[in-house]
Amino acid sequence: MTGASVRMPEPDAQLARKLFDELDRHTRDGAGITRASYGDGEQFAHNLIEKTARDIGLEVSTDVAGNLYVTLRGRKEGAGTFLIASHLDSVPQGGNFDGAAGVLAGMAILSSWKRTGFAPEFDVATMAIRAEESTWFPYSYIGSKGALGLLSEEALEVRRADTGRTLAEHIDALGFSAASVRDRVAHWKPNDVKGYVELHIEQGPVLDGSDIPVALVTGIRGSFRYRDARVIGEYGHSGAVPRTYRHDAVVAAADFVMQLDAKWRQLEQEGRDLTVTVGKFFTNPEQHAFSKIAGEVGLCIDVRSHEKATLALVKSFTDDLARVIADRYGVCFELGVLTGSEPAIMDPGLIDIFDRAATRLKIPHMRMASGAGHDAAVFAGAGIPSAMIFVRNQNGSHNPDEAMRIEDFDLAVRLIAQGISDLTC
Amino acid sequence: MTGASVRMPEPDAQLARKLFDELDRHTRDGAGITRASYGDGEQFAHNLIEKTARDIGLEVSTDVAGNLYVTLRGRKEGAGTFLIASHLDSVPQGGNFDGAAGVLAGMAILSSWKRTGFAPEFDVATMAIRAEESTWFPYSYIGSKGALGLLSEEALEVRRADTGRTLAEHIDALGFSAASVRDRVAHWKPNDVKGYVELHIEQGPVLDGSDIPVALVTGIRGSFRYRDARVIGEYGHSGAVPRTYRHDAVVAAADFVMQLDAKWRQLEQEGRDLTVTVGKFFTNPEQHAFSKIAGEVGLCIDVRSHEKATLALVKSFTDDLARVIADRYGVCFELGVLTGSEPAIMDPGLIDIFDRAATRLKIPHMRMASGAGHDAAVFAGAGIPSAMIFVRNQNGSHNPDEAMRIEDFDLAVRLIAQGISDLTC
Repeated sequence: MTGASVRMPEPDAQLARKLFDELDRHTRDGAGITRASYGDGEQFAHNLIEKTARDIGLEVSTDVAGNLYVTLRGRKEGAGTFLIASHLDSVPQGGNFDGAAGVLAGMAILSSWKRTGFAPEFDVATMAIRAEESTWFPYSYIGSKGALGLLSEEALEVRRADTGRTLAEHIDALGFSAASVRDRVAHWKPNDVKGYVELHIEQGPVLDGSDIPVALVTGIRGSFRYRDARVIGEYGHSGAVPRTYRHDAVVAAADFVMQLDAKWRQLEQEGRDLTVTVGKFFTNPEQHAFSKIAGEVGLCIDVRSHEKATLALVKSFTDDLARVIADRYGVCFELGVLTGSEPAIMDPGLIDIFDRAATRLKIPHMRMASGAGHDAAVFAGAGIPSAMIFVRNQNGSHNPDEAMRIEDFDLAVRLIAQGISDLTC
Repeated sequence: MTGASVRMPEPDAQLARKLFDELDRHTRDGAGITRASYGDGEQFAHNLIEKTARDIGLEVSTDVAGNLYVTLRGRKEGAGTFLIASHLDSVPQGGNFDGAAGVLAGMAILSSWKRTGFAPEFDVATMAIRAEESTWFPYSYIGSKGALGLLSEEALEVRRADTGRTLAEHIDALGFSAASVRDRVAHWKPNDVKGYVELHIEQGPVLDGSDIPVALVTGIRGSFRYRDARVIGEYGHSGAVPRTYRHDAVVAAADFVMQLDAKWRQLEQEGRDLTVTVGKFFTNPEQHAFSKIAGEVGLCIDVRSHEKATLALVKSFTDDLARVIADRYGVCFELGVLTGSEPAIMDPGLIDIFDRAATRLKIPHMRMASGAGHDAAVFAGAGIPSAMIFVRNQNGSHNPDEAMRIEDFDLAVRLIAQGISDLTC
């Protein structure tokens, strides 16, 4: 066996290209890509990875939730496993890169390491995670929670949007074990996982705008959300009700949006990490008219930060603001059910290792928070040192126009391979 | 015949009550009242007025557009006709008072005058106007324009929302003459009309809020409208796209609404007559999501004033503002098709006569502009001295909850009777 002193072999870039092509060919659904969680497209991808791994001579295994592991044994037994992980499902009519890129990165690395006989001390496994996209099952991080024995019983009863069947039924239908998931059988104890890295396309425009191919993710933003807020005012004749008699839901909600936006600007200037989004804002289509003062507005509020304190601050500002707006306009402001998630911090030690690797490889890079959620948050939350590498990508994600350049992907894969091999050098 | 020196007889309040009851009983449609323009409900009302007039011994006639006239001859031939007018149609699921009250006011006056032998020098006619509510045919003031020979040829081709048949077909189906309307046969030359008065429920809350039963209308607001404006931004991930990269259609449109509203406040403080309303504001329901920055907002803008200069000023402010917002947020602001109407000034001489009558009768009264459009605007626009009397009303109009108090109606009818009889005293 070659040792840590041997130069890290180049990842198998051709294999990744071939796998991207096969995935595209077999899971294309008109304009976009569709790989349903525990559905045909995802299963095709799992089969493809499994067959590829066996052809290369890598070990293959699965856990009770159906996550797939392709393992290269390390030089030292009991040194733990480093996971190169991501998911293989996609949103309906999504793109080919969101999720799959991270698994193919692992395959490109393990393929070349197997072929050249290179291995770190510890095991390295490519993990293909199930069911990350919550458009299918309205539940976050099903696969990664299942792998860690963290999936709640209620999650097994949620139903897939298209089939109407429960998660438990779908898990069992593919030959895995909902009962074991329910019993919280963990495939990994956190201490057995040496580290976790996830390559993912950036879902925003920052890298492309900055002309930088990769980013080291500092944290995954947590959130709070009012998905179904409502402002109830009073309908009235647009010409006949004077200003002082109005309880205009549109003006009240617009004022709310502008004040929330001003707060964001202020907190950002103070150096806080934050996004604030009102993605829906709608008068009632069965009631609204050009000649009527609006008596009702529905809206949603999505606030994200990787700083817990910032989330708490904006939450309290939002609640106060709703009361102020209600008083000012004589409207009723119903914020509705609150949901959200905890921020996850990526491991500073791992970030530094990948940062040094990028510098050594002369790959331009920057640091940024991830606004979107990722399985890495679950592993980080379980105390496993976790990292994420973002790859520059055009046109966002969750749509058929995702446009990661393969050369950028190659750089990120090299960076990951270098970082992992540096861990024992 | 009795002369002008005889004290004006009290209007027939009981007849008005009886007619309101009959209309309610026969044109009630579940919770509300439905009297379609040139449809069954409106026709029932016309038949009821016609039969009532004949029973009283008043003259009955119609014009080519199907408007109905109930005439009490004056003491002097050729002294012209004073019209007490309003419409008998209603919106679907509307109330019993919007429109009909003005016709019943005329019937209450003429009934008592006929019975007591009272008459002014000039003829006085109650006019029941067709098709004022443009929810049925998308065209304003069909009946009153038809009476004055002012209806455009294109109007005859608009189709009724529920039947899909043209206005011309509906006019002919009731035995009137679309051909004559098309030939602009006028029932009235403006010089033959001595004056016009329309009693109407106030469609706003001002009288009720001020505890005053009637108002003298100073003018009918004109308007400009962008019924289908759109703000086109860019969809993006709510967590992954930073502030400076956003082209958020909701924030841009909310800023627009707030600045328009601030302009209204400023102009109102300067003493200008104005209403500004954004009655619709909606993200695209097929695209919006709580986790997406909104890429599109549809909205409408309705601006009303009885001052032409104020309309022009706000129009120019709105157009400029759309450009400013487009620049600020990097969005595209499409204001769309502009429609509108001219303001109409009520006749100051007539207003003074009714004002003095109200004072004499000790009826608390105030002056106000009408925000909604009324047939009086057409008569005023044709150069006929026109007036409107608003009656206090609860719960707005165009809904089943209109709630004019019959005692307030009685006061307004007395005021009109007094004013008309004063014209020759």
